[in-house]
Order: sequence, then C-alpha cells, then structure tokens
Amino acid sequence: MSRRYVAQYGHQESVNEVFRATEKQLRPNRNGNLYLQVELSDRSGSISARMWNANDAVYKSFDNGDFVRVEGNTQLFQGAMQLIATRITPVDAKEVNDEEFTPLPAVEVDRLVKRLGEILRGMADPHLRTLAECFLVDDRFMSRFSRAPAGVKHHHAYHGGLLEHVVNLMEVASRVAPCYPQIDRDLLVTGAFLHDMGKIDELSYDREFAYTDEGQLIGHLVMAVSLLERKVQEAEKLAGEPIPVEKVLRLKHMIVSHHGRYEFGSPKLPMTIEAIALYCLDNLDAQVFFFQQQMRDDPNVGSPWTGYNANLGRKLYKGGGEGNEEG
Amino acid sequence: MSRRYVAQYGHQESVNEVFRATEKQLRPNRNGNLYLQVELSDRSGSISARMWNANDAVYKSFDNGDFVRVEGNTQLFQGAMQLIATRITPVDAKEVNDEEFTPLPAVEVDRLVKRLGEILRGMADPHLRTLAECFLVDDRFMSRFSRAPAGVKHHHAYHGGLLEHVVNLMEVASRVAPCYPQIDRDLLVTGAFLHDMGKIDELSYDREFAYTDEGQLIGHLVMAVSLLERKVQEAEKLAGEPIPVEKVLRLKHMIVSHHGRYEFGSPKLPMTIEAIALYCLDNLDAQVFFFQQQMRDDPNVGSPWTGYNANLGRKLYKGGGEGNEEG
Amino acid sequence: MSRRYVAQYGHQESVNEVFRATEKQLRPNRNGNLYLQVELSDRSGSISARMWNANDAVYKSFDNGDFVRVEGNTQLFQGAMQLIATRITPVDAKEVNDEEFTPLPAVEVDRLVKRLGEILRGMADPHLRTLAECFLVDDRFMSRFSRAPAGVKHHHAYHGGLLEHVVNLMEVASRVAPCYPQIDRDLLVTGAFLHDMGKIDELSYDREFAYTDEGQLIGHLVMAVSLLERKVQEAEKLAGEPIPVEKVLRLKHMIVSHHGRYEFGSPKLPMTIEAIALYCLDNLDAQVFFFQQQMRDDPNVGSPWTGYNANLGRKLYKGGGEGNEEG
Amino acid sequence: MSRRYVAQYGHQESVNEVFRATEKQLRPNRNGNLYLQVELSDRSGSISARMWNANDAVYKSFDNGDFVRVEGNTQLFQGAMQLIATRITPVDAKEVNDEEFTPLPAVEVDRLVKRLGEILRGMADPHLRTLAECFLVDDRFMSRFSRAPAGVKHHHAYHGGLLEHVVNLMEVASRVAPCYPQIDRDLLVTGAFLHDMGKIDELSYDREFAYTDEGQLIGHLVMAVSLLERKVQEAEKLAGEPIPVEKVLRLKHMIVSHHGRYEFGSPKLPMTIEAIALYCLDNLDAQVFFFQQQMRDDPNVGSPWTGYNANLGRKLYKGGGEGNEEG
Amino acid sequence: MSRRYVAQYGHQESVNEVFRATEKQLRPNRNGNLYLQVELSDRSGSISARMWNANDAVYKSFDNGDFVRVEGNTQLFQGAMQLIATRITPVDAKEVNDEEFTPLPAVEVDRLVKRLGEILRGMADPHLRTLAECFLVDDRFMSRFSRAPAGVKHHHAYHGGLLEHVVNLMEVASRVAPCYPQIDRDLLVTGAFLHDMGKIDELSYDREFAYTDEGQLIGHLVMAVSLLERKVQEAEKLAGEPIPVEKVLRLKHMIVSHHGRYEFGSPKLPMTIEAIALYCLDNLDAQVFFFQQQMRDDPNVGSPWTGYNANLGRKLYKGGGEGNEEG
Amino acid sequence: MSRRYVAQYGHQESVNEVFRATEKQLRPNRNGNLYLQVELSDRSGSISARMWNANDAVYKSFDNGDFVRVEGNTQLFQGAMQLIATRITPVDAKEVNDEEFTPLPAVEVDRLVKRLGEILRGMADPHLRTLAECFLVDDRFMSRFSRAPAGVKHHHAYHGGLLEHVVNLMEVASRVAPCYPQIDRDLLVTGAFLHDMGKIDELSYDREFAYTDEGQLIGHLVMAVSLLERKVQEAEKLAGEPIPVEKVLRLKHMIVSHHGRYEFGSPKLPMTIEAIALYCLDNLDAQVFFFQQQMRDDPNVGSPWTGYNANLGRKLYKGGGEGNEEG
Repeated sequence: MSRRYVAQYGHQESVNEVFRATEKQLRPNRNGNLYLQVELSDRSGSISARMWNANDAVYKSFDNGDFVRVEGNTQLFQGAMQLIATRITPVDAKEVNDEEFTPLPAVEVDRLVKRLGEILRGMADPHLRTLAECFLVDDRFMSRFSRAPAGVKHHHAYHGGLLEHVVNLMEVASRVAPCYPQIDRDLLVTGAFLHDMGKIDELSYDREFAYTDEGQLIGHLVMAVSLLERKVQEAEKLAGEPIPVEKVLRLKHMIVSHHGRYEFGSPKLPMTIEAIALYCLDNLDAQVFFFQQQMRDDPNVGSPWTGYNANLGRKLYKGGGEGNEEG
Repeated sequence: MSRRYVAQYGHQESVNEVFRATEKQLRPNRNGNLYLQVELSDRSGSISARMWNANDAVYKSFDNGDFVRVEGNTQLFQGAMQLIATRITPVDAKEVNDEEFTPLPAVEVDRLVKRLGEILRGMADPHLRTLAECFLVDDRFMSRFSRAPAGVKHHHAYHGGLLEHVVNLMEVASRVAPCYPQIDRDLLVTGAFLHDMGKIDELSYDREFAYTDEGQLIGHLVMAVSLLERKVQEAEKLAGEPIPVEKVLRLKHMIVSHHGRYEFGSPKLPMTIEAIALYCLDNLDAQVFFFQQQMRDDPNVGSPWTGYNANLGRKLYKGGGEGNEEG
Repeated sequence: MSRRYVAQYGHQESVNEVFRATEKQLRPNRNGNLYLQVELSDRSGSISARMWNANDAVYKSFDNGDFVRVEGNTQLFQGAMQLIATRITPVDAKEVNDEEFTPLPAVEVDRLVKRLGEILRGMADPHLRTLAECFLVDDRFMSRFSRAPAGVKHHHAYHGGLLEHVVNLMEVASRVAPCYPQIDRDLLVTGAFLHDMGKIDELSYDREFAYTDEGQLIGHLVMAVSLLERKVQEAEKLAGEPIPVEKVLRLKHMIVSHHGRYEFGSPKLPMTIEAIALYCLDNLDAQVFFFQQQMRDDPNVGSPWTGYNANLGRKLYKGGGEGNEEG
Repeated sequence: MSRRYVAQYGHQESVNEVFRATEKQLRPNRNGNLYLQVELSDRSGSISARMWNANDAVYKSFDNGDFVRVEGNTQLFQGAMQLIATRITPVDAKEVNDEEFTPLPAVEVDRLVKRLGEILRGMADPHLRTLAECFLVDDRFMSRFSRAPAGVKHHHAYHGGLLEHVVNLMEVASRVAPCYPQIDRDLLVTGAFLHDMGKIDELSYDREFAYTDEGQLIGHLVMAVSLLERKVQEAEKLAGEPIPVEKVLRLKHMIVSHHGRYEFGSPKLPMTIEAIALYCLDNLDAQVFFFQQQMRDDPNVGSPWTGYNANLGRKLYKGGGEGNEEG
Repeated sequence: MSRRYVAQYGHQESVNEVFRATEKQLRPNRNGNLYLQVELSDRSGSISARMWNANDAVYKSFDNGDFVRVEGNTQLFQGAMQLIATRITPVDAKEVNDEEFTPLPAVEVDRLVKRLGEILRGMADPHLRTLAECFLVDDRFMSRFSRAPAGVKHHHAYHGGLLEHVVNLMEVASRVAPCYPQIDRDLLVTGAFLHDMGKIDELSYDREFAYTDEGQLIGHLVMAVSLLERKVQEAEKLAGEPIPVEKVLRLKHMIVSHHGRYEFGSPKLPMTIEAIALYCLDNLDAQVFFFQQQMRDDPNVGSPWTGYNANLGRKLYKGGGEGNEEG
Repeated sequence: MSRRYVAQYGHQESVNEVFRATEKQLRPNRNGNLYLQVELSDRSGSISARMWNANDAVYKSFDNGDFVRVEGNTQLFQGAMQLIATRITPVDAKEVNDEEFTPLPAVEVDRLVKRLGEILRGMADPHLRTLAECFLVDDRFMSRFSRAPAGVKHHHAYHGGLLEHVVNLMEVASRVAPCYPQIDRDLLVTGAFLHDMGKIDELSYDREFAYTDEGQLIGHLVMAVSLLERKVQEAEKLAGEPIPVEKVLRLKHMIVSHHGRYEFGSPKLPMTIEAIALYCLDNLDAQVFFFQQQMRDDPNVGSPWTGYNANLGRKLYKGGGEGNEEG
C-alpha cells in the first residue's frame, strides 16, 4: 500500500510513518522546559517536527541521517505545516523502502544517465565528444554527479537534482540551438553539461545537504575549472592530440560566466554567443522551476495567490481567481 | 548584376550606387563652411555620408526618404565607416529594385506571415485561436505588423524586423514549452505573438524609423493592452461567447510584465509561469541577436575581439585568437 | 455617550465595544491548543485580538466583515497593542452607528465630493471640463470613487481615503500652479483627479481591503488608461467634437508616469511640466501623510522618537526631547 | 533701442554687440593654428565664441569678467549655437547698461528682497522672527544673499538666482503648509529661507561662477550650520533669552537633510515633518525649473521634443506634435 | 576570586552574580501573565534576562543603570544565550568592583591616553601640535573622549571604545604613512585623532548607550566640524598666529568625508591623499574589528563557521574545518 | 646629458627625442587626408602624437613596439598634451639607453626582488615558507613576475609595476598585522604576495600592454588558483609532507575574494580575517597610488584642483588654493 507523503499533508492529520531525520536539537522553550526539534523528510519534501517535554534519551536514540518512525499530528503553524510528535523510534535502514526517500527513483536516475550519454555521445565535435567520454567513464564522477543535489535549499534540493537540472537544460539547449545559426550546438550542450559540475564537491550530500568548506570559500565556478583542467589532460592523453586551446578557453569561460552578472558571483560576464545563451537558458530553467515549486508547495490552498515571496519580491498567481471582484 | 551592399564596404572603396536617404542636414564646419550630412541605407544597413562644400541646391534636390544615386569614396573614420560623397542626384522610386532596400525580401516576409498563421491556427485552445484569428484577418493590423521594425536602433531595426523577431520567438517558445509540464503552450505562444504588438503604433516607419509621440509618452506595453481589449470584444462577438476573464488577464499580464524588471519599464513583474518564461525567452532572443549583430558588424576585422560596447559593459570574443600569448 | 476608539487605547484597558471583524483565523498555539485570532476595527484604526481556547463554534458565529461585540483587555505585546478577548458575539449591522466605522463621516465625504465638483467645474479649459463632467455624472464611478481607500495598508487605507487624498492633492496643485508660469493649471488639476482612479477597480473594499486579481496582475496605472479611453469617447459624444489628441495624450502620460521612477512601477518617466509637478506633489502628499501617521500612531508614547521604520530606513523625531544630553 | 539677447539668436545671424567675457582660452586646432575661445554672456544666457587665427594680442586685450564688443556670425554647431567672431574689442564697464547683464533687474531684486522681509517679519513665532531679523539686518549677508547664484550651471545660475529660488520656495511653502495641519508653517518657511544659504560662500560669483575651495571640500550644508550657529548667538543676545534648543536643532536638521537622500550628499535623512516637506518642495521647485529651462532653451526649434538629456535620462515633450502618425 | 563573565557563559549554567541592569520592561506573555525582561551586562558584554511571573514590586526595585544581583540559569534560546532569573536584588554601587564593568580597565585607559599624548606631541608640524594641545588640555573633552563608546552597538560599544579605536587607528596610520611619500603623516594622524570626536556628544553613555537627539538629527560629522572651529580659535589665540586656512580646510574635509561614500552619510567624497587614506584605514580597522568580534562571540561553538550575518551578507570562517568532505 | 621626459613636457615645446612607439594608425581626417597617429612613451609615461599628411611609407617604416626618433612640437589639445610630429625615423634598439624606458631601473627591480625574498624567507610558518620558495626558485615565474605591469592602464601600468605594487603591499601588511592580534601575519603576507600573480599570464607585456585572450575570458583570479594548485604540489613534493588542506584553502580564498565585492569581479566575499584585511589594504594601496598619479599627472598646472575624473566621480584637491575667496 502506498504511503502518504509529506507534500500531501493537510491540517490536523494523524501521522504514523517512517522518515529520514536531520537537524535534531534539544531546546528549551521560554519556560525552560526542553523539547526536541527535528526535520523529517521523505522523497516529496520535509516537515519540521516538535516533541514536547522531550528528554536526552529520545535525543540520543537516533543520529542525524537515520530513519525514524514518528507518530503525531500535523498542524498549520504561522503559515507552515508542522508535526507535533508524540513518539519517535529509530528504524533499521534495511527495513526501509528506498524509493520512498529518493525524489528521483533509481529507474528515473538511470534514464537520465542514459539520456546524458546519448546526447553527449551524439555530438559531432570529436574533441568535445572525447572530453565528454572522459567524464562518462569516470565512475567516481558519475556516481557523485548523479547523486548530488543542485542546491542546498529550494532549487532541485534532492539527490539526483543536479542530474535532473543538467539533463533538462541540455534538452532545452539542443532544441533552441537550431533557431540561432551562430550558436555552436555542441559547445552549448557541453557547456550545459559542465556548468554546474563543481557542485559535486561544493556540496556535501551523504546525509544532509550543506556546503563543504571548500565550496563555501572557493565556490563551484572556480572548482569546476580545476576539474575541467584535469579532464582535458586525460582527454588529450586518450586522443593522442591536444584539444584546441581556444575550445578549452570557451568552455572555461562558459563555466566562470554562467551566473551572468557580477552580483551573482560570476567573475566574468558572458562574452561569447554560447556563454550568453547558456546563462539565459540556465536562468529560464531556474526561474520556471522555482515558480512551479512555489505554486505547488504554497500552503494557502484556497487562494489564487501564493504567499508573498521575499526573494522574488512578489506573490505568484496560481490561477482560479474570478478575474476581478465585479466579474 | 548584384549590387554591393553597405554592410560589405571596406576602407577606401569607390562607390556609385543608389541608396535611400534620411536625416539630411546642411551644417557648418568649424570654419563656417557648409557641408551636407545624410544617412544612406540599403537593405543591409546604413552609412553616414558627407558632402563637402555643399549648397542649398543639393540640399533641396531630394527629401528624406527619397532614393538618391551617390558617387564617392568610403573611409574608416573614428572606428566607423563613412562615405565622402562627390555627387548626389535624386532617383525615381520606380527605377529602384525594391528587394535591394528590404532586409527581408517579400518572399521571406510571406513565409513568416504564413508560418505565423500556421502556428496560431494550430493551437488547441479555441478561445486563443479565435482571438488570434481576429488579428490574422485584420488587414490593417497584419500590414503594419509585417512592416514594423522591432526597434528604432540595433534590435531588428528594419522593415519586417518585428515579424521576424516575433515568429522566431514563437518557434523557440513552441520548442521549449514541452520541457516544462506546467507551461500552457498555447498561452505562451499567444503571449509571444502579442507581447510587442504595441510597436506597430509606438514606432513610425513609413519613411524613417522613429518613436511616435504616443509611443514616447505612453509606450507599447500600455498601447498593446488597449489594442488587445478591442480585439477581445471582436473575438467575443465572433465566437458568440465570452473569453474567460482569467485568460484575458493572463494575456494582459504577459504584455505588461514582459520586460521583466521595473527598471526596464515593466509596471508589473512576471507572476505566472508563462509570463516568467516569456520574459526569459524574449531576453534570450534579444541577447543572442545583439551578440550576433555586434560580432558581425564589428569593424575591427583583424581582431578576435569586438570593440568595447558600453551598453553591455564588455568586449565580445569573436574567436580566432591564439588562446594566450604563451600558447 | 461617545465610544472609546481603538486609536485611543492604552495598556491594560478593559474593553466592551462593537467592532468590525476581519481576517479571522482559528490557529493552534505551540502546544496544539486552538485560539481565535481576528482583526477588529473602528473608524480610527484596527487592533489585533486573540481569544484563547477558542473553538469552532465561536469561529463560525460570525463572518469576516461582520460586526461583533467584544469583551476583553488590552495589552502591549512586542511593541504593538493587542486585545485579549474573553467574549465575542455577533451584532446586527442595523444596530450599529455607521459613523463609528467610517473614518470620514458621511458629511465629510459629501463635503469632499462637493469640493471635487467645484474645482473641476471651475476649470477654464472646456475640453477638460466636459471630460470631468462625464466622470462626475457617472453614478457608479462616483460611488466607487468616494468609497475606495487609497491603499490596502498605511496610506489612506479607509473608505473615502482615495477621495480625501485626491481632493487634498487637487487643492495643493491649485495653490502651487500659479507659482510656475509654464504649468497649465487645469491640466495639472485634472491629472491630480485622474492619476489614481484606477484604484477603484484595482482594490476591493466591500468588506475587507485587498487587491483584485486584475489589480495585482495589471495595476491601476494601466487600468486607468483604459477607463480614461472610455470616458474620452463619452465626452466627445457629449461635446459633439473631439478632444485634441495631444490633450488626451498628456493626460494618459500623467497617469502612466505619476510614480515618477521605473522602480516604483511607472512604465514611463515624467516628460512634461505637469507630469513632473504631479509626481512631485503626489510624493509630497504621500510622504507628509505617512510621517504624520507614523508619529500619531507610534506606540512609544514616552519617547521623542518613533520606533525604527524599515521602509523609511530611519526613526522619526516626534519632538519634545531635551535637545541634547548636556542641554 | 533694445538689444537682441543671446537667448534669441537663431542660425546665421550677424552680431555686433557687447557681452561679458569669461573662460577665455588660446588653443591650437588640430593643424596647430591658434584660435581664441571665449564664453560671452548677457542677462539671458551665454554663448560660446571662437575667433580663428587669433593671436596673443587679442588674448591679452581683455580679462575674464570684462565687457567686450564682438562682431561676427552665429551658427548652429553640433546642436549648440556658437558665434564665429571676427572682431573683439574691450569696452569700459561704465559705458555698459547694467540691466542688460543682470537676469534679475535691480528692481526685481529689490522686490524679492522686500518680499523676503515681508514673509519673514510676518511670522508668528517670536524666536524665528528674531533669528530672521539678525540675517535681514546683516548687510554683508544680505548683499551676498541677493547676488549669489543658486548654482554654477543650469539651476538659477545667475546673479540673484539664489534669492529668486529661495523666495519662490518660501511662497510655495506658505501656500502648501495650511493643507497639512501638522506642519509648523513658520518653521518650514524659515527652513526654506536658510536651506541653501551656505551657497553664499560655497560659490564665488564676483566675476565668474565657480566653487570656492571651501565650498568644494566642505559643502554648503555643513557651512550653513556654522553660519546658523553664529546667528543664533546674535539672536539670543538680541532677544536676551535663548532660542529653545529643540527649535535650533530642527533648523539645523532641515539644513543637513534637505537633499533628502544620502546619494545627493545629505548626511542625514529627513526625520521631521517640516524636513520632509522642505525636501519635497525644494525638489519640486528644482525639477519644474529645470524642465522649463530645458524646454525654453532647446535648440531643436521645429521639434515637439527636446534633445535627449543624459542627466534626466529622457527627452522632454514640448508639445505641438500631432499626437501620433496615424492621427 | 575572579568572577565568571557573561562572554564565558555556556548553556545551562547556574548564575549568582552582580550585573549592571538596563532596558528593564514589564511585559505580558501571550497568556497575559507579566514577566520582567532586562539586559544585564558586565565588562565582557551583555545578556538578556527574563524573570517569569514578575510583578510591579520587582520592576520598581531598581532603575536602569543600577547594579543588581541576579540568580538564575542560562539557556540557549533561538541561537542566543539568555538568562532565566529567579531572583533580582539591587546592589549598592559602592560594593561593586568597578573593574568588572569596564571593558578597558582604568590602567588600560591611562595607557591609551598617555599614548595619545605621545603621538600628538611627537608631531613635527607646529600648527597641528598646538591644535592638538588645545584638545589634550581640555579636561571636559578628554574626560568624555576617554569614556565615550565608538558606537551604540557592535563596534567598540563600551566605555573607552572610542579612545581604543582612535589610538589604534593612529598607530596604524603612523606605520603606514611612510610607505607613501605623498602622505603628510602629521595631517593623517591628526585626522585620525579628530575624525570621530563628534561622537562624544552624538552619543550618550552615562548610564546606557544611545544617540542624543542632536546626534540623531545632525550627526557626528557635522558636530565635529563645529567643535573643531572652536578649538582652532583657541589654538590661534594660544599661538598668537593663525593656522593656515588650507590646513584647517584639509582637517574639516577629512572629517566630513571619512565615511568615504555618500550612502554611508558622508556629504563629501575624499578629495585629498590623506582623506582617502583615512577612509581606507578607518574602514580596515572597523572591518577587522567586526570580523574578530563576530568570530569571538559566535555561539555556534562546534562549527568552523559563524552564523549568517545579514549585515555582511555572509558567514565567516572561524577555521578548524576539515578542508572538504572528501578530505 | 639627461633627456627630457614626457611627463615634464609643457605647452609648445620643441621636441627631438627617442620614444617607444605603439598603437600606430593611419587615419583619414574629415577631409579625407591621411595622418599618422601613434603613442610615444618613455619611462615617465606616454604622449599621443599626430603626423599630418602622412603616407604609407612612414606608416610601414616601424612596427608597434619599436623605438623611433621623433621631431615636432607639443601642444595642449582638449585638456591633454599631444605632439605634432614633423619627422619620425626608426632607431635601432641597441642604440637606446634602456634606463630611459623602464620606470623601474634594473637596480630598483633588483632591490624589490631582493626585498621580496627577504620578507618571504623571513616568515615563521614552515609550510608557507616552503611554498614561497617554490615560486622564488622558479625562473620563468620570477622573470615574468618582475616584468609584468599591474594593469593595462593607470594602475602601475609599466614593466615592474606588479612587483612594485606587491612588495609595497607586503611591506604595509607586515607593518599593520601586529596591530591586530587575530591576524596571522605570515598568511596575510603570503596572500599579498600571491593575490595578483595571475596577472603574469592575464596580461601580455612584451611589446605593448594588453589582455591575453585567456586573461579576458577567465581572469587573473581564477588563473592564479590554477597556478597555486601546481605550486602546492611542488611544495609538497619538496617538503615530503602535505601542506594542511585548510591553509591552502585560506590562500585560495584570499585570491578569489581579494576584489572584495561581487561587482568588482570577486566570485566570493572575504570570509576570513586575513582576506578582509588583504582586500582593505589592497584597496588602500590602489586608491592612494591612483590619487598620487592623478595629482602628479594633472595638466591643469596652475589650478589647485585636478580636472574632473569620471571614474572617481570627483575632482581632487592638489592644494595651494587660498582656502576660500574671502580669505
């Protein structure tokens, strides 16, 4: 029988389910009594849980990253759904159905990896194809690349999120490129493949999602350039001939400029056709994804509008309003 | 025999050709002598011409918008090509080959108009299809829509430029929409069709390209909303039933928000999936077009870099450099 | 006997009074118990109320917009006054003294409407006078225009607020215009009349104040242009002659540019004398009104300073300090 | 017989007139020949003049600030009117009609000074009246205050310009204050009087208009505070009692905050009702004055639009267009 | 026996200690019960305390600024340490060890004052030395200058903080000046001495730290210029000869421009070598001080990163991380 | 006999001297005649030269980067000094005194290299000392590092400029570090050494100063990280033990964050004490250097003010004014 997922919870539901636990804390309330706070997640998202009058025993009964069974009730508190837990018990990972905790089921990840290979191996440019091959056959790389999230919060923040974002962007790039005769399709597609790969080491995602120290201090743009330099050496060894310097420069440039503006952390602005196109398409993908997510997860179920989003500086229109009051 | 076009001129060529003349002025130089300055254009672009020691007779021998035959020599002056004219004589419009002055030859315009109809009539949404039909059968509208430029300067600034930009954007929108399940393809495509239509009255383009007073004071975003309101009434009469209020609101919203940011003159920020997608794709199309144009028209022929573009805040890389000096 | 108004409440007063109720919510506290939260207002302002240990029966006993009698006690909580209710009972609207709930008593609204007519009918320009007449005799328009607030929050956010703001601005415009010979007084006064009229449909204000979907998606600037276009047609029919195109353009321009800067949602910057004057005077009126309101409503009664206002980026000086500590 | 003024010059007029000369320079042209460039002004404005093939003798025949008789011809060069001089001879200041060189004729200055006294002496607040009196009876102050320009360029840049700006602003303040019950009219009027007075020493204007070193390094806001401190001491001595510390603080605050925003050089933002009103009204006066000036002086006589003004980021609409091309 | 200081508190310590009390408030909680909130400080910093179920008697038993003995327990609440007090009793100031409440012990203040005198009296420039002497011998000035904090919050916010910041900046200035031949060392050092002196009256710091009305309305930049003007008069009287006007201008300029940018409240940008150097060094000192403080006081003791600081727009790296997750 | 240097030229001097020639162009004037334009430089700076009525023969007689003897006359044209050449003849490089073309004479470069070694080898931290050694013994690196300019224009734009800037910054860092106990002096000094080293390949400077393609597309921040990674490997091999990961991270972080703000091209903001100090000191050095240069090279010799500098948004005060006009 199928489980009920976090994203489906309404107000005041009774819950008895297995979750992955993270960010556990034992905290005093204003009156000095201790309660346990912990994030519970399944593949659909996460929910904040509190267990009143908790004690050290409960706190120590599981670690962050462990699976736990939780009994309790949901409630909408200050615009967000939370769970008041009455019981929390650890669960052996072996008893857990992995699919329930992976937003992208293994078969979907497999499909994306396969599609990634198809697109890359289908390129006409021999240098780029060889370079891509060096990534595709690198097991450590592929393993991390297909497990990494695309971000710590919001933007594809789940295992496989990076892969999903990248392959979708490559699809979009493939479709759009023929509309602009000056765009080198293979270069654009390779740029889409490589632009965010620094995230495989910028983020940590074995148990919980966070920035590594290196990620925070250096950033995935600079880290990806180092990674590319190593792969270029491999590719040149493999091919027995150098990749043209200019082609490598163009790839590096796409990586360091793909945030498009200095204030978004790009040390260089896009200066080639493919770099500007990559920035615009990456932005499109991020914006549309974020709009979809905001609308889907908005807790004001009855309203045609989402709540105000401070990052966007606006509410979003989900639709279903009456047009106007006079209507 | 094919003519040599303005965009093909090099330094110090001898010229004897027919052009369209605009912006003629009789001006004194620093020493008080008069010279004639005039813009000369063919379908490939325009060039500034000067005729030294000109007099009132030459100045009055033609009007702005007329065709003239010009003899003279080209020269590169302060980074721009100009033409030193020794003789300017008016030419009867009937003797002119129209194709030489229309960047989009009639057959190309016809193809674009046809493609526009195909895409719009191929939509599944009956309301949007009826609405689109009301535009397609409006001869004044279609005539202006297929003649208007997309801008006064730079961006598709030639007859048919608006049509070319819009149809290309509709193609891109059609290709990208399926990659995002939440996007209503027909709504996005209709938005792409309507977003810039206010330009048919914001600009004047019978003889030279300029803003109308209304265009300057009110702007094409607001003007397009008025135009849409009139067409909605027609469509409802035609269909015998109202178009849902919400659908019209969504179209209007796409129009007023398609510049995407307040500082670009949008009175509203995009708040629907289709509005944010339209803004991102319109931006992609404008940026890629502008990069292509800058690289193609850059006069520093020998250099891998264009000149510094103040609007972009950067030079662009045309390619062909050696990678780096050490290389 | 006169009632005690919300704006007069101090800390820990006992209350037994009739209010208009809005934004009612049944919410759980951290311990999972339900309480009722509701906004209570009279003509002087509104106060947030909470009723502990509330249940569904109380929640359903009245609707948003209804009048209710509330018993309870005030208290200052986190810098804001709130009311802890012990009893809430619905009250029949017929038993309520309307004047207690209308910031502008009927007689004041009548005075403002009369003054509006005087100023508009006193204009020398026949076209503008005829146009104004078409608004003045439009009952639906005048009814909404004299009931609409000027905003959802803060700025004249009460029934009649729009009318009060507009008439005051027209007075100021009339007084200032003669100081500048180039200003066309009638044009400026008409612009002051029309600039915000789109708010009659941008906002809903029958029961609670909010944006309509159209208002949120399109905005009152664009909506006012549509409304003006319809009235111009009426005026031309009434007068039997067209209003000069330029005059209409100037009015439209004042409407779309009156926020003065792109980042405030104007799609055009002021480009005429009257448009720049309207923007500056509208800004003056808004700023002075906001300063007065902040100082009057500031809860730090004993201090010469208001609390820090994040929108303004500053505290305001109410006065009565000692000058300086050494003083 | 009345002279023809600089502001009235058209293209290619013959000129033989007396001007005040400033900014003379002997400069080589590109071919190494020397020419004399000099600014010529009368009360209506100034015009740039060039004398070709000039020599040291002409250059030394007059000093900046002297009167000279100039013969020559006008011409429109790169959008600005200039004068090609054929003869320049010095003129004795005694032979010059002073009225022709003073934008504000003596009688107008007298009227403004009288009006200034009326307004200030008509205030009800005894402290402010006494303080104002100390300025009014200070001959050096009044002499400089009625001769100073309001700026070096553009904004009231002529002798008496400061006085004209200030008295007009005081009139506007007097008219507007009664519309806002919280505004202390006398405080606002005194603030309008004092806000720019630092300019009497920030600028030098005996011969040509420029910033003094102190003006450039310290600025008129800070300088005015020092000046006010000295006058407050005088006023307290005169009155035999202190002016309330808070009143002086409010005046100083109006001075240091009257540019309204940090980026315009105000070290403090307006925090009182009168300070915010002063900023808004000063801005109104400056903007309307600047718009009037741009429209009046625009050399594109035949066009409904001024040239593009980079400071404003727009063209201005002078009017007389046809509405739109289709009209 | 040495006391345990606030900055040393960990989670759930038992406390019985004397503090200085400020900002006491009697407040209702959500259930309407009163509690006492009060800030408690010693020389190392301050901690927020709450006493549940407090009454008027406790509230009135001490004044802000008094010393009190507090018993209770610490707890980490929402990322900040707080103290739940069970008992609060007033303490006579005479029984208190002053050193425990002064971040800079008297001996350190003496050392700094002595060092200040050494540096100033060691200058070669006789005018600046005389001017400095006038400050050094002014007891009221020196007393306030050595007691004032450098800010109300964060930045050297303790008695003597201004002195500590200024003397350190003078040290840095002395060391750096020789590296740049164009810098006038004595001028830079005097500027460092004077730049913030307006704070002695901008802030009040007898009992609690706050802005004076004058400080808030006028600001320490403008106030320091007035103070300097008075001292210059004294110095000229003392020396029997004027200080060169230009030297005084340069000092005033350093004061009004030392925030370096308009948006930080400087009415003038630095325009001399010493002014730009002073701005850069003052900024260095403030930034490094703030970084040190953030790292030292960060409550996330176990983490290599501080919490996110909204003012800085970033977290800070305290160190001790493992480099990256892969290690 | 000592030559007269470019920086010493006044108006209308006669010149007969050897220069290095760059940026030669053959250009038409408005009348279509050709002239030669070329930049001429010696160690003190450069001057723009024009030779009228030039022909192809002259143009081809030398290459950019060659030495030429030029005869002609100086003149001040539009605020800049230029040279009207009457004769240009190539000169053999062997006949040229190298010292006249090197702002830093060989002996000064030697002194700076020596000082660089002293500081680096004097560090206490063994890892940083070993790492530094790997740079010091790398001949290619040291050769380029001591020849590279620090910029293409303005900022130390001459051979050895990078070395001079870096060593001066290291001196300043050494002096300032002890004033802040939390700063790790050796880390700061090493960061100062490495921060700009990417410029050795970002710029080309064999003949004329320019950006390499790699420099323009990737930038010296990212390039320096790659370079550092290679040297770390060498150092670890040399030392036979790894440099702690965190130490390398801190160095990389200082490099990528040293522009201090996103808008200046840093992909990361400073997050360590040493990184923020490096940014502030680098900024100090650049600002003071730029102020010194602007004042020294300003052509308005008679004025106490430099011309307006658009980058700085201000004029600079050179001094020697009279204080104020009244003075």
